[in-house]
Amino acid sequence: MLRNKGTTEKSRRGSKTKTRVRIVENGQARLKSDALATEEPMEIRLLTGGKTQTVAVTMRTPGADFELAAGFLYGEGIVGSSEEILKISYCVDPEVDAEQQYNIVNVELRGNREYDLRSLERHFYTTSACGVCGKASLEQLEIRGCPVIARGPVVSAETITSLPDKLRETQRLFDSTGGLHAAALFDAEGNLVALREDVGRHNATDKLVGWALLEGKLPVSDHIVMVSGRSSFEILQKSLTAGAPIVCAISAPSSLAVDVAREFGMTLVGFLRGERFNVYTGFERIKLQEK
Amino acid sequence: MLRNKGTTEKSRRGSKTKTRVRIVENGQARLKSDALATEEPMEIRLLTGGKTQTVAVTMRTPGADFELAAGFLYGEGIVGSSEEILKISYCVDPEVDAEQQYNIVNVELRGNREYDLRSLERHFYTTSACGVCGKASLEQLEIRGCPVIARGPVVSAETITSLPDKLRETQRLFDSTGGLHAAALFDAEGNLVALREDVGRHNATDKLVGWALLEGKLPVSDHIVMVSGRSSFEILQKSLTAGAPIVCAISAPSSLAVDVAREFGMTLVGFLRGERFNVYTGFERIKLQEK
Repeated sequence: MLRNKGTTEKSRRGSKTKTRVRIVENGQARLKSDALATEEPMEIRLLTGGKTQTVAVTMRTPGADFELAAGFLYGEGIVGSSEEILKISYCVDPEVDAEQQYNIVNVELRGNREYDLRSLERHFYTTSACGVCGKASLEQLEIRGCPVIARGPVVSAETITSLPDKLRETQRLFDSTGGLHAAALFDAEGNLVALREDVGRHNATDKLVGWALLEGKLPVSDHIVMVSGRSSFEILQKSLTAGAPIVCAISAPSSLAVDVAREFGMTLVGFLRGERFNVYTGFERIKLQEK
Repeated sequence: MLRNKGTTEKSRRGSKTKTRVRIVENGQARLKSDALATEEPMEIRLLTGGKTQTVAVTMRTPGADFELAAGFLYGEGIVGSSEEILKISYCVDPEVDAEQQYNIVNVELRGNREYDLRSLERHFYTTSACGVCGKASLEQLEIRGCPVIARGPVVSAETITSLPDKLRETQRLFDSTGGLHAAALFDAEGNLVALREDVGRHNATDKLVGWALLEGKLPVSDHIVMVSGRSSFEILQKSLTAGAPIVCAISAPSSLAVDVAREFGMTLVGFLRGERFNVYTGFERIKLQEK
């Protein structure tokens, strides 16, 4: 099997993305350079029997893209051995935007076997990403009518640092299973409004937003969305559609999470632990201690 | 909007699932009762214009299922306000297996607007789950020809406890971004064979399995798959298709991860931290210290 015909396996963007971050500690802020895990959509296309079909679009960190495509197809039972694969390559179609070429992987199979992917369509891991690069994903959010969040409350650093303990106290299930993610809604004073849990972060966020929708509380323009783990494109996208101006996470954001927050005027906080947190975007909504 | 017509919103199975676990500490083992975060597939069906369409199947923790359905549809832009929703209910079709009824949520929309979900099909979060209950998901793995893993190496407790440090040392990117999951392959002596990283756990595992496929190393019948976070249905499914007899995770497994491991003869280790770990299934492959 040829792995590299057309282009070598490397990513345009790389697995790390540099950013500037404000570290808030004990009520004071300083600027620092930081690295984010890159998150970009990747489309897997299957070329077989003269047809090209999109199998899946998945949000991934660039790197080992051909292995990702092969492993995905193997896991889904479409490919049973490496002999079935004739070639894996990036899409170098000149009609495809240069920025997107390294986010499309073509897998060409031997022989003329046809794959009816329709029967499989609901079994694939795909994402809400509607383009195949981060920029296209952001544009898609604009097209869907997500407005830039121009306002929203100003929240004290003390309020922000008080959130993790409140989240954990309320996460009744966390202690007994250790396996649940939480998504919570707080008001600008740090009072918990609602909390939902799930094995999946995106599900916990969907439950929270669904609660707000059914209770007639959308948009949550004066509130903070807080998640127990990391923040990804999905988390920011869901928070944005709910109108939340501030998103806080216990752990790291991805590059595309930061991009969404920046583009749509949201405040994104990460690594929220103890008396310390990072502000990636929207620092104007954070009030420091008066000196 | 009626939320509860037909049936009240509660899950058959609940958000916690009891299990028995062996805790291995300093080379000694004891049995303990434990609770797992329940993981079950849920199908969201849209009823509109006289048609019923499956929108998505997502692996979730039962509870707040109607909110999950509403939040999902809102996040995908299918529903813009709660007024558009006429009714949310569990599927109580007598032809549907009782076990599955609480895993299918019907969302009935007002009016006769038709939704062409085909254009959206690759934008939905779906999973490899092929049934709508955990049992059906397991059966689907059997149908796909995944054999029970009858053999595999016996590994010492010391080898198991040595894995997290090796994983972290090798995870070059983790320190600088803090946002990447890792999936690694170790041999039975605890030597690292390969490691792949990604913002998504399932992608990291796909990359690892894809590497093994392309290198002609499948099945990995004598090896250990190790993941940096939690273990879910997906992780176990992917490891199973790769033929891995032992799966270790730093954090908690879900209920369905344990079900897959038990059904297919795999050893599943969780909460692997310091000198301690939990063995959920396949304890016969763990060798304790000789007393």
